[in-house]
Amino acid sequence: MSYLEDALFPSEAHVRDIAKQLYNLTRGLPIISPHGHVDLSLLIDNKPFANASELFIFFDHYVTRALHSAGVPLVNVRQGADPRSAWSIFASHWNIFAGTASGYWLKNEFATLFNIHDDLTIENADNIYDAINASLNRPEFLPRALFSRFTIAFLATTDDPTDDVSAHRKISQELSSRIVPTYRPDKYIQVHTPAFVTNVQKLISTAGLIELTFANFMKAFEITRAQFIAAGAISIDIGVEDPYTCELSDAEAGRIFDAVVSGTSTKAEMRDLAGNLLYRLIGMSCDDGLVVTLHAGVIRNHHQQTFEKLGPDHGSDLPLQVEFVRNLKPVLNAYGTDPNLQLILFCVDEAALSRDVAPLAGFYPAVYVGAPWWFIDAPYSLQRFRESTVETIGFYKGSGFIDDTRAFLSIPARHDMARRVDAGVLARLVDQNRISFEQARTIAVDLVTKIPSKAFKL
Amino acid sequence: MSYLEDALFPSEAHVRDIAKQLYNLTRGLPIISPHGHVDLSLLIDNKPFANASELFIFFDHYVTRALHSAGVPLVNVRQGADPRSAWSIFASHWNIFAGTASGYWLKNEFATLFNIHDDLTIENADNIYDAINASLNRPEFLPRALFSRFTIAFLATTDDPTDDVSAHRKISQELSSRIVPTYRPDKYIQVHTPAFVTNVQKLISTAGLIELTFANFMKAFEITRAQFIAAGAISIDIGVEDPYTCELSDAEAGRIFDAVVSGTSTKAEMRDLAGNLLYRLIGMSCDDGLVVTLHAGVIRNHHQQTFEKLGPDHGSDLPLQVEFVRNLKPVLNAYGTDPNLQLILFCVDEAALSRDVAPLAGFYPAVYVGAPWWFIDAPYSLQRFRESTVETIGFYKGSGFIDDTRAFLSIPARHDMARRVDAGVLARLVDQNRISFEQARTIAVDLVTKIPSKAFKL
Amino acid sequence: MSYLEDALFPSEAHVRDIAKQLYNLTRGLPIISPHGHVDLSLLIDNKPFANASELFIFFDHYVTRALHSAGVPLVNVRQGADPRSAWSIFASHWNIFAGTASGYWLKNEFATLFNIHDDLTIENADNIYDAINASLNRPEFLPRALFSRFTIAFLATTDDPTDDVSAHRKISQELSSRIVPTYRPDKYIQVHTPAFVTNVQKLISTAGLIELTFANFMKAFEITRAQFIAAGAISIDIGVEDPYTCELSDAEAGRIFDAVVSGTSTKAEMRDLAGNLLYRLIGMSCDDGLVVTLHAGVIRNHHQQTFEKLGPDHGSDLPLQVEFVRNLKPVLNAYGTDPNLQLILFCVDEAALSRDVAPLAGFYPAVYVGAPWWFIDAPYSLQRFRESTVETIGFYKGSGFIDDTRAFLSIPARHDMARRVDAGVLARLVDQNRISFEQARTIAVDLVTKIPSKAFKL
Repeated sequence: MSYLEDALFPSEAHVRDIAKQLYNLTRGLPIISPHGHVDLSLLIDNKPFANASELFIFFDHYVTRALHSAGVPLVNVRQGADPRSAWSIFASHWNIFAGTASGYWLKNEFATLFNIHDDLTIENADNIYDAINASLNRPEFLPRALFSRFTIAFLATTDDPTDDVSAHRKISQELSSRIVPTYRPDKYIQVHTPAFVTNVQKLISTAGLIELTFANFMKAFEITRAQFIAAGAISIDIGVEDPYTCELSDAEAGRIFDAVVSGTSTKAEMRDLAGNLLYRLIGMSCDDGLVVTLHAGVIRNHHQQTFEKLGPDHGSDLPLQVEFVRNLKPVLNAYGTDPNLQLILFCVDEAALSRDVAPLAGFYPAVYVGAPWWFIDAPYSLQRFRESTVETIGFYKGSGFIDDTRAFLSIPARHDMARRVDAGVLARLVDQNRISFEQARTIAVDLVTKIPSKAFKL
Repeated sequence: MSYLEDALFPSEAHVRDIAKQLYNLTRGLPIISPHGHVDLSLLIDNKPFANASELFIFFDHYVTRALHSAGVPLVNVRQGADPRSAWSIFASHWNIFAGTASGYWLKNEFATLFNIHDDLTIENADNIYDAINASLNRPEFLPRALFSRFTIAFLATTDDPTDDVSAHRKISQELSSRIVPTYRPDKYIQVHTPAFVTNVQKLISTAGLIELTFANFMKAFEITRAQFIAAGAISIDIGVEDPYTCELSDAEAGRIFDAVVSGTSTKAEMRDLAGNLLYRLIGMSCDDGLVVTLHAGVIRNHHQQTFEKLGPDHGSDLPLQVEFVRNLKPVLNAYGTDPNLQLILFCVDEAALSRDVAPLAGFYPAVYVGAPWWFIDAPYSLQRFRESTVETIGFYKGSGFIDDTRAFLSIPARHDMARRVDAGVLARLVDQNRISFEQARTIAVDLVTKIPSKAFKL
Repeated sequence: MSYLEDALFPSEAHVRDIAKQLYNLTRGLPIISPHGHVDLSLLIDNKPFANASELFIFFDHYVTRALHSAGVPLVNVRQGADPRSAWSIFASHWNIFAGTASGYWLKNEFATLFNIHDDLTIENADNIYDAINASLNRPEFLPRALFSRFTIAFLATTDDPTDDVSAHRKISQELSSRIVPTYRPDKYIQVHTPAFVTNVQKLISTAGLIELTFANFMKAFEITRAQFIAAGAISIDIGVEDPYTCELSDAEAGRIFDAVVSGTSTKAEMRDLAGNLLYRLIGMSCDDGLVVTLHAGVIRNHHQQTFEKLGPDHGSDLPLQVEFVRNLKPVLNAYGTDPNLQLILFCVDEAALSRDVAPLAGFYPAVYVGAPWWFIDAPYSLQRFRESTVETIGFYKGSGFIDDTRAFLSIPARHDMARRVDAGVLARLVDQNRISFEQARTIAVDLVTKIPSKAFKL
């Protein structure tokens, strides 16, 4: 795999050399993946992957959205499509992935897992498809074997508060790793959606309560959070368009909640209630200690027709500009110095990472900077992220790298990417006499060990 | 012209070497200029340029605004000023152009066209002025001769829907090139301006219709678009401050239109009508196939006094922050997957290019990413543009380079700049093992051939 | 100090070599510091610094906020804390400063002033603390001796309009330098604060007037500005969250002012009055010639509890997104071409520097681009600033570097940083054949001499 040897390192020979020395300290270290979307059944069932298309195309919405953007109907490249035809479409569009994050991961996965080093073409598509399929039936390509080969020390899934998360402990023992659920309460705070009240009722029932009251709603959060903690959870993950927070008394919040239930609330009240639910979910962490990861600034299912036909996660979730400093003022004034709270802020708006998030994390002990996410989880974006936040917060108030992926095979490729980019960033700082080589060595290792462990209380 | 040989390439010898190899594949290829502001009479009349000041200063508002910002009254450096004095002012301010886009183009034009390699100074100003003037009277400096030397394969002008655009076909034949008009309907959708109703009435008349009704207004758009298409037009270009779109029924749009005509509409209604006109103009392209270029986020004529004294295009048009994801949701839900629509989004807000535009183009087949425009049409900006969008959309959902210029002589300098920067970007990706050299070769050529041809349906 | 020799320069040998040649032209030139927060009593009293903690930690809120963000209570690292314990805390957190602006300055100050080249550790903390303290008692470490060693040719303090600023002339003479006050009227335009009316009354009294009327308020501004000018002031510095400006007649402004005094004004009126006060303070400069520095887009004292316990300037001032183009339209239409006005725009929002500020300065003769400030006053930020504004405005519409510091010892480290970064930026432009080496030499020197002198009318 010689061509990957120097991938992503700086170009100047002496800086590249420093980067390689730093990378060599981290390349063998286990992966900590504290936030992601791997389907646990993959590891429970441990069935062979069906074919190359199922592995690399059908469930990777980075790949399917790119093909869709080039004019390929989604139905031709998702579950249900003919896999060999889908692979052929994929191969004929290989060049649209050049320079993209997916393009890099795919190249990396082909090379490291299947020893394929050529660009995909219409001509070699069938051969490569067959070669990959042949590998997939070998025992070392079963999900559990790959899990072990990837040396994943910690893996978090993402789960609904009403999900049964009892399987995590068992699979952890079987794989000699730590695999835990994550509490994801989004749909219980989306006050404006038609299903909100039904969802809340279900949450209340799951918690063993009955009446649809605001007090029971809050108790249901506490009870189900405790259930997740008992199942190993270390964090709660919340996705919002706008990270608006708002303090409300129990009486006022309850009054608005009742109005929502009876369909008589105003838009402004619904906004305040949503902002207050976010405020309270963060506040509860001061008591139960769950790390809060807040993913803000994404509009989900922008293309209604795609959502109606195919459901969510088909590539039409899109970034929004985001503002944290004013929006989080209420909740940070209440809890920002609480020693039990750790609030990690993620967004897809690069400007906000350096302007809002790093300065907030540079003052409030509770605030951490989330790694670049989604569209900006890529080599140049990671480098820009470091260079535009390090001068404010250094390296020690970050979350560590987060892969956030559904694509199981891309986990090592993504973490390897981050380690390479960070080695390059550190090497540049050493070369410019801004930090000592000794510091760089310590930081390189801390970035994949101590720093994520501290941010996620592992 | 040895000093230009390596201009704009990366600094590391081995990366520079890759860049040069890639650039050498494209430097001789014809120019495709699908959006610009060249005055057709320049080519029709084919008169010699009067003097160096008329050529480089008087009509280039990049140059005059910079001089104005340094305290030079605009009247001293525009048509009507003494050309030799203007040149002398220009020479004495040469250093203010150092590092600017204009500074680079001027340097390039002086060198490639007039063999002038020195910095301009007060001392050499007169000599250089005379030397350029002497050249301008030679036949090879007539506009048509230059057009031919520049190997411009495709050139679009920008025209009002009521303009007579019949001359384009003839000049195309005479120059053995493809020169076409572009439909620019801005003033017919600026509902809030005092002249709006008068403008619409003129458009309706131009289309051969009479009554001032919303139905006739829409028909007039369709008829004049068809006239432009008959004259060779391939695109409609729309400039707006805010890219707000809004769906309205014919009845509702007609009702607001009538209110506007009778002066009884509210501000909110006018905004909705403007948003609906943008929505409809984009929708019409699903029928007639005109590519839509949308230039958003510029406030025109910021300095009222300059506008009143000198008219538009004197440098006080200024960038605004822009938001596309929410604003375009209605129109993209209606037409974003229509195979006949191609909507290219331009703005002067770098953050929006990577955060809004690239993700939209990365999902919707109809959306393309416009090249950096105006203030950000410059070497570093182009490089940032690539590096901040390529990871989301790769290279194949872009518009190709757009010169957008009134300054005829700067066309080859600008395209050459883009080819150099792109060669450098590709070389870096090769050096970092992100793409293969073979891919880079293909992409470098596609960027100036297939990619603009596809984006503009050439 | 060999390790600092090449600090911050580009990595490629031949570009670094150009950068060094350019830097060598400027490294010995005197410092012009036209905006900062040095406490004049430091130079008047000329007492030895008490100890290393007082010098490097207690009064530097860049340092204390970083320690606070890492969980250290502010009371442990500010005036009143045990200095040796504070130093020990600081040493044990040394790595959190790696890569930050403060980290670089501290490294630079330790090396150049105290010949300390090691990273701080728990082990060497006491020795280094003692070594620094020993130095501080030597005569060459008295504030005046350092001032002289730093070759500060011009220094501005920041002062309240009601302050007595008569000491500046005397200290200037004693130090053979030019030390002047700056007029900072923030609290007299914060219409929404409870103390506003009391503050205005005090201003009116200071000006020798009596009645609390809008006319007297305006006269008081004029009179106290004149007093500052008499004391040597060359600029007025205004800090606002939002740079909103608004034109109001005297009658209308007076009416709102009276309503504010009587507690009957609306929120919208207060906003307009604040915007009009900013408009008028800028307009007064057309008469008295004070340069206006406008610092926009910061929310002060975000953490209420810290503010209540410890007062302002403890690190919870945070950046906001900022918009200048629309906000400044009224005032720039009124005064933007006035030859007596120079308005320098600062913000902490990098996107606004390139999108708003540079284009405004690229048209309006009165507008200058402020150097990156606060969170973005750091090596990579400075480089990004240059690379993202130079293509619009070149080098000659900037303010020159501003240290804006309370930390006296960091002044030379900061200016040295800016000179190194600018040398690197210029070297890159030379290497890319965008400017000539001769131009780069001129610009490098102008950036620390003519350019700040022109921007601040020195």
